[in-house]
Amino acid sequence: MAEHLAEAEDEMLDQARIDAVLEAVEAGDATTLEELMAPLHAADIADLLEQISQSDRRALLALWSHEIDGEILSEISDAIREEVIESLSPEVLAEAVRDLESDDVVDILEDLEPPQQGMILDALADADRVAVEQAMAFPEGSAGRLMQRETVVVPEHWTVGEAIDFLRKSDHLPDQFYHVILVDPVMSPVGYATLGRILSSGREVALRDIIEDSFRTVEATDDEADVAYIFNQYHLISCPVVDAGGRLVGVITIDDAMNVLDEEHGEDMLRLAGVGDEASMSDGAFATMKQRLPWLVVNLFTASLSALVISRFEATISSILILAALMPIVASTGGIAGTQSLAVAVRALATRDLTQANARRVVMRELGAGVLNGMGLALILGFGAWGIFGDAKLGLVLGMAMIVNQIVAALGGVMVPLTLERMGLDPALASGTFVTTLTDVMGFFAFLGLASVLLV
Amino acid sequence: MAEHLAEAEDEMLDQARIDAVLEAVEAGDATTLEELMAPLHAADIADLLEQISQSDRRALLALWSHEIDGEILSEISDAIREEVIESLSPEVLAEAVRDLESDDVVDILEDLEPPQQGMILDALADADRVAVEQAMAFPEGSAGRLMQRETVVVPEHWTVGEAIDFLRKSDHLPDQFYHVILVDPVMSPVGYATLGRILSSGREVALRDIIEDSFRTVEATDDEADVAYIFNQYHLISCPVVDAGGRLVGVITIDDAMNVLDEEHGEDMLRLAGVGDEASMSDGAFATMKQRLPWLVVNLFTASLSALVISRFEATISSILILAALMPIVASTGGIAGTQSLAVAVRALATRDLTQANARRVVMRELGAGVLNGMGLALILGFGAWGIFGDAKLGLVLGMAMIVNQIVAALGGVMVPLTLERMGLDPALASGTFVTTLTDVMGFFAFLGLASVLLV
Repeated sequence: MAEHLAEAEDEMLDQARIDAVLEAVEAGDATTLEELMAPLHAADIADLLEQISQSDRRALLALWSHEIDGEILSEISDAIREEVIESLSPEVLAEAVRDLESDDVVDILEDLEPPQQGMILDALADADRVAVEQAMAFPEGSAGRLMQRETVVVPEHWTVGEAIDFLRKSDHLPDQFYHVILVDPVMSPVGYATLGRILSSGREVALRDIIEDSFRTVEATDDEADVAYIFNQYHLISCPVVDAGGRLVGVITIDDAMNVLDEEHGEDMLRLAGVGDEASMSDGAFATMKQRLPWLVVNLFTASLSALVISRFEATISSILILAALMPIVASTGGIAGTQSLAVAVRALATRDLTQANARRVVMRELGAGVLNGMGLALILGFGAWGIFGDAKLGLVLGMAMIVNQIVAALGGVMVPLTLERMGLDPALASGTFVTTLTDVMGFFAFLGLASVLLV
Repeated sequence: MAEHLAEAEDEMLDQARIDAVLEAVEAGDATTLEELMAPLHAADIADLLEQISQSDRRALLALWSHEIDGEILSEISDAIREEVIESLSPEVLAEAVRDLESDDVVDILEDLEPPQQGMILDALADADRVAVEQAMAFPEGSAGRLMQRETVVVPEHWTVGEAIDFLRKSDHLPDQFYHVILVDPVMSPVGYATLGRILSSGREVALRDIIEDSFRTVEATDDEADVAYIFNQYHLISCPVVDAGGRLVGVITIDDAMNVLDEEHGEDMLRLAGVGDEASMSDGAFATMKQRLPWLVVNLFTASLSALVISRFEATISSILILAALMPIVASTGGIAGTQSLAVAVRALATRDLTQANARRVVMRELGAGVLNGMGLALILGFGAWGIFGDAKLGLVLGMAMIVNQIVAALGGVMVPLTLERMGLDPALASGTFVTTLTDVMGFFAFLGLASVLLV
């Protein structure tokens, strides 16, 4: 491999390095620690801090916190950010936040408590503080919080040459920009041209002749999840943000949108399972319990519904005891089918492949799949039970209950999230608990009900 | 809002438009149909085709398939791509694929059957065909398949002025590029400079003085999921791809990486639920059954384990019938807890927040959370049962079984995916089935076992 001109491809964070870091921390060897940390990318340093235990983290920060810069601060997850910021001297903190673009400062601020927010705001230069405070005025999770306020704009009537001369003369361009935005006299964006097109066009070419074919803006109050969707759907690299009056107020770049997409996915997965979406590997057992216990308690009560259903059939069970052993098969297979249908529906709602336009067709599809799966499972289970217990009627009851519950599972899996979405709620919100309660209750009811009619 | 200079902000796909499209299709009105489709972005046209029923899709394509271009083809999901391609005349297909960059052609080709692959390859110009065939030689899901071969490279010793003059003179630059890659004499990339830095620097500045601080390359054989991770972790916008000898062979841009990240997430969610990761809203009931039945059948057999456990305690149940009604509470709450722990672990493995470095600590954390949740739930359930049934011992048995099963659930949820990952398997692969089987079996066993000792 060739020698890199760049500061060297950053070294990766691997187990050997983590071990060496922890050894240096334990030995109190600040010099070795600095040598080990220096070649790491800020994102990897953040990961390292998140992965080690709280006591190791404290010891590491005691030796090394003066090296923490803005980039590391903005990479660190919310779960440990407060802790890390507390370890910094006011000078280090001030230095760190002054390096950052306004959107990164906002990202750090929004999860902090007021006293720490105040410390950071005080550390900023006046102009930056105003910019950050303006961004914080937008709702949490909005495009206004996500955008950077530094934009590169030119009048719509300019030529390539004028734009290049302007860029050459500019003192302070954003760290990352990919488009020059064309604005009209009232600062409404009317199109944008990529730097690639500008660089490869003649100086006399009018910018309006080389703007991108498709052009979209978002409003500062739009939800960041919608913004991420638009980036992914339309392959945007950057997107101007406008206020209610259509005037340019900032720009969002794809790396921030990708980050939002990633976080939204994680939240969907965790919410679906009934876990608070703030779950992090650096949480302790107590924090983890607090995230999970609420839905477990809810489930304790919904599961009692199953118990209530079963208790109604005590007479049936006492006369045919094997029913007690067989009834979880129907309920459990229904739970899995409901989870399958649910995962597909929640994913499709997130990617907007499931919409009002096809909801009815998808529900019918699930109904069909539920019938087919039910029949397939009924055949295996029904004949299996017949063979094992020599009782054709028992096989029939198992098979029929299985078909009923598979249909309930398939429909429940798609209709629960669709209903939550129509109610304006998050379709992933603990849908898993609702759907498995449904399939448990129906599984026991169908099986024991049929048994009480046909077998007793 | 200001008038847009661009072709007009593409119109959105909404329910009204879908209804109007379907009406025009039914009326066989090709002119209205064209008017309705024209302002839509290719990605929205693809969504529309996916969301309508197969018969509507056929009718629409019969009227409109001559308008299908390369961009629409590459947006269409695998599930219906074959069907759409079959509806195209050879001329339309040839025209469509000739428009595309080589990476998009590869993306279309890889999911087609050989006869359709041949038709598309034949339609390409010779140079493009060679490029596509070379890309197809890389393994499926590799960086080599994802990359575009068109790169913008300059010798490492050039100045800004030389680079700008070179770009101005180039006939064919890629549609989208954000960096100029510096290479050494054997074509190994040594760094890159953003177009923004190039445009804002003086002509005499050496490119090597304005390259990005951090610089990464990936190998063509690297897994696309790893590439997506690197983009998200290090905030890359584009990344050069090298061969085993370190020579530049292509470049991957962030929009493709974002797409991979999105797909990987979807696959994780579906696999976790035991659904084939190809599930799509355009699948019919039969295709859906085929994706889901295999894991349901597996679950049918694993659920029989629970039945076997319960059948061992028939004597206990027959003497205290209420046990049959209460036993699903312990099992079901365990299932939810296992799902919670599992979702957190699978998500953390995907984001690489859960690694060898902290696996032991996370397992201990889960153990602690399991104990805490178990005690909390045991108190509610135990005292509740005591109150309702006036039987303190029954409450004790329920509470103890709950604690045992919560611990099993918490540990199982993290250890099943960790074990699958160590075995080189996908940690999400139907982990849900394994974990709920575990919590069902342990839930019934702990509850009935304790009951048989303490209550009978």
